[in-house]
Amino acid sequence: MMAKGGGINRNALSVLMRSRMRASAIAKETSMNPVDSVENAMADVMRWMRASIAVPTDRTESVDSNLRNFSQNYVGLSQAHRRELLLALAKVHDVNRERVRELMQQYLSLDVPQGSGGEGEEAGSGGVEHEGAMAAVYRTERSLRDALKPKYAVLFERLNEHPGGLKVLEMLRADLLSLLVKDNMPSLRALESYLKEKLVSWLSPAALELHQITWDDSASLLEKIVAYEAVHPIRSLLDLKRRLSVGRRCFGYLHPAIPGEPLIFIEVALLKDVARSIQEVLWDDPPTPEHAATCALFYSISSTQPGLSGINLGKFLIKRVIELVRREMPHITVFATLSPIPGYMQWLLSKLASQIKLSKMDPKTMEGLPESVSSSTFKENILLVEEEKRILDATKEDTGDKIAMEVLHDLLTSTRHQWTKSETMLSALQPPLMRLCARYLLKEKKRGKALDAVANFHLQNGAMVERINWMGDNSDKGIHQSGGIMVNYVYRLDKIEENAQSYFSTGHIHASSSLYKYLEITESLSSDR
Amino acid sequence: MMAKGGGINRNALSVLMRSRMRASAIAKETSMNPVDSVENAMADVMRWMRASIAVPTDRTESVDSNLRNFSQNYVGLSQAHRRELLLALAKVHDVNRERVRELMQQYLSLDVPQGSGGEGEEAGSGGVEHEGAMAAVYRTERSLRDALKPKYAVLFERLNEHPGGLKVLEMLRADLLSLLVKDNMPSLRALESYLKEKLVSWLSPAALELHQITWDDSASLLEKIVAYEAVHPIRSLLDLKRRLSVGRRCFGYLHPAIPGEPLIFIEVALLKDVARSIQEVLWDDPPTPEHAATCALFYSISSTQPGLSGINLGKFLIKRVIELVRREMPHITVFATLSPIPGYMQWLLSKLASQIKLSKMDPKTMEGLPESVSSSTFKENILLVEEEKRILDATKEDTGDKIAMEVLHDLLTSTRHQWTKSETMLSALQPPLMRLCARYLLKEKKRGKALDAVANFHLQNGAMVERINWMGDNSDKGIHQSGGIMVNYVYRLDKIEENAQSYFSTGHIHASSSLYKYLEITESLSSDR
Repeated sequence: MMAKGGGINRNALSVLMRSRMRASAIAKETSMNPVDSVENAMADVMRWMRASIAVPTDRTESVDSNLRNFSQNYVGLSQAHRRELLLALAKVHDVNRERVRELMQQYLSLDVPQGSGGEGEEAGSGGVEHEGAMAAVYRTERSLRDALKPKYAVLFERLNEHPGGLKVLEMLRADLLSLLVKDNMPSLRALESYLKEKLVSWLSPAALELHQITWDDSASLLEKIVAYEAVHPIRSLLDLKRRLSVGRRCFGYLHPAIPGEPLIFIEVALLKDVARSIQEVLWDDPPTPEHAATCALFYSISSTQPGLSGINLGKFLIKRVIELVRREMPHITVFATLSPIPGYMQWLLSKLASQIKLSKMDPKTMEGLPESVSSSTFKENILLVEEEKRILDATKEDTGDKIAMEVLHDLLTSTRHQWTKSETMLSALQPPLMRLCARYLLKEKKRGKALDAVANFHLQNGAMVERINWMGDNSDKGIHQSGGIMVNYVYRLDKIEENAQSYFSTGHIHASSSLYKYLEITESLSSDR
Repeated sequence: MMAKGGGINRNALSVLMRSRMRASAIAKETSMNPVDSVENAMADVMRWMRASIAVPTDRTESVDSNLRNFSQNYVGLSQAHRRELLLALAKVHDVNRERVRELMQQYLSLDVPQGSGGEGEEAGSGGVEHEGAMAAVYRTERSLRDALKPKYAVLFERLNEHPGGLKVLEMLRADLLSLLVKDNMPSLRALESYLKEKLVSWLSPAALELHQITWDDSASLLEKIVAYEAVHPIRSLLDLKRRLSVGRRCFGYLHPAIPGEPLIFIEVALLKDVARSIQEVLWDDPPTPEHAATCALFYSISSTQPGLSGINLGKFLIKRVIELVRREMPHITVFATLSPIPGYMQWLLSKLASQIKLSKMDPKTMEGLPESVSSSTFKENILLVEEEKRILDATKEDTGDKIAMEVLHDLLTSTRHQWTKSETMLSALQPPLMRLCARYLLKEKKRGKALDAVANFHLQNGAMVERINWMGDNSDKGIHQSGGIMVNYVYRLDKIEENAQSYFSTGHIHASSSLYKYLEITESLSSDR
């Protein structure tokens, strides 16, 4: 039943489940044009692109009827052809710079009435003459705004207003993003950034519709849920059905111009208590009866469109789901998440690596440096004395003369995460990993916001950090990302606005006392040294 | 049950029907703030506006939570206060012109690589250095695009991304449009034109959802259908129910960000034949059984939002309704309209007035003029000799020495349309009014497109002019607009694309032979003179 070339049979949902599909397979689904027609397709696409940019907006019918061809052909193009096409778009259909310069000269020669556009001006000031002089200013500014649009803007606008066009724009941006990874050309970057700006403006959160996804939805929609579930992969038909049936909810944001394909979706479990591990959420048996549930646990949020990355579609999503669940089930009073900490291990390993380097540096090599950059400036006690001792004890046999930080680094990067298979190791690593995790979540910032992307998402939405859970996710991915630790964020209905506001204005991260206790351990023990 | 101040009780649909409501009543519905709170509301609105423009986009939560207040307060403001507010927006929160000039100087001093942005350039030309020099150009253009945005753009963007915000933007534009009628200030015009541009971009036809409106829809939605039906007013509850039940369909375009309020809606009657008069459509009894219908007749299209006027929301609407009806009822093979001709009388009366003037001019006064502007250049035989004779015969007694064109002009502008009450008059007027109507529809153009707005709408969509119908609408409004004549446009499924395309490219209006016959009458009789 599997079509060649990585494509899948749309209706064979159960077959699909047997060999888990990757998101890329869906994208490639229609890219099976015979090789000999590719050149024609490319020529067609180029022709349509040129025509649709050249034709004035009120005479577009003939161009528009070929839009379907365009998208079909585009999907069939190879990477190399797509690159060629995007480069042509970026370079040939760019800003008309002669026109821009001409208008600028004109604008600069205009007599702009004093004080116009200033902050302090009061409404209604200036007389009829003032207004008269301003008419030319407004007109030229409008022309300038038009002239500063790259010509490819017309193509984007045309695509946006056509059914199916927004999906094509999403594909174009996905391709641009992957091209830019390899080749950061200014023209492609400008194209990508213009397209992103337009997508942000066209994908207003207010136009997104909340849809409860159920087992009664179409296979083609459910297929996408399976393909794009990024947090906790769906392993079987049974697994999918479980996530949509008793004690579970799944909600997606749909955009009317991209039908049948949620742009982002969230999975909810209805439970007695806030779960500590994803295992108990995914394989609870029997499930909590819905009338006995008091907690709605958000255990997975995934976005589905690579071409919409960096565009915040999740705004309002959690708020709206909470409203919906409360209306349907007033006995649910706790709204919490069980979330991954995707950046924790990466941060910790790089921290360990730099500290190992510093601690191994010959003190003499530091001598020539000014005091401000001497090792003491950067050196940090990542591990507490007690923690170091336990780590070395647990691994005594085979560590040689490595320092504890090295041992820890080696353990965390060892293949197949051997450390998780030994009780001794687990109990030696738990205290430092939990403590450092609290520090990572509460203290590590980037431009005043939480360094961890998931933390930042929930804090922005008004949640607080409630609890971190040892071995909350013992899957390979969980161990790899965060040493198996998961975190519960809690949404307190009466605090959402307040929390969001103080996070925005001061960067303050609200957390429970249990989280702050981890930070205190550091301080008290450190000062004993 | 009627609230004071023009407001209506939302749920009292049947009460509403007894005293027909006007669209303006819905808009005023919530404007019943006590007078003493108006000043506070104004202050609040101003404060929120300032704040929401000043706060950076990623720190907006606190501002956004006050959005609901803003819209409630705005609705409560008087015309004068709204004017004050819009003026403040236009003037105080305008383009930062100092910044624009600064960036322009910077841009003009940049070294733009040769040929960049030209039409002829091939993709991939220029080397790494070229790209390097371009980076600064792209960056400055981006900054210029940002700087050329008026500061109020931020307010619009914020409103657009919030549930309910699009509706507020629509209200702002409606107010701007009505202010501009009285006072065409450049600053307000610039504000309106910027807002229109944004609304066009945000209200993509691809994001509109086709919804069949039925008797099961909410009273608050049906209330809007009653209020906004602009073509053939709905007179009673029975009339409304009739338009939604057997043999009838009603479809609306809904935007997800403006829930419960169709932006535009279309009414369809399922009939045996293409109807000739609106009377037989609205009061057919018994209705054609649906299985016996072969024709879907579009008899009314109305848009509901004054603030979206001039924005083409009807694109795709007819096409999508046709697709839907065909799928549901394959036995329907004819898709036609019964449409008003809103501009006919206005055109005819002004034509008559100018010809009367010309024909009364003393030939001597023309002598001094160059031949090219002599009366013969402008003079036209609007009426044929035979037609003139019949008009004068029918009204012999009381016309004195008036010429036939004057008599016709007087009849058409007489109060209460007396001419429609006399059989003699009707039969005297029918031939010239029908003939001139054909000419108006097929020959009168403005910038290459049909002068009549409704004709232009259907021709753009790919319809052809099929038939004109004497006394197709004998209501006061019908007589006043078009001498009671209505027109059938027909959508031939196999010709839609072709017709639309040739209308766009050459301005050719497709019409049936019966329409063209009217034009031939003119020519053959004229040449007899």
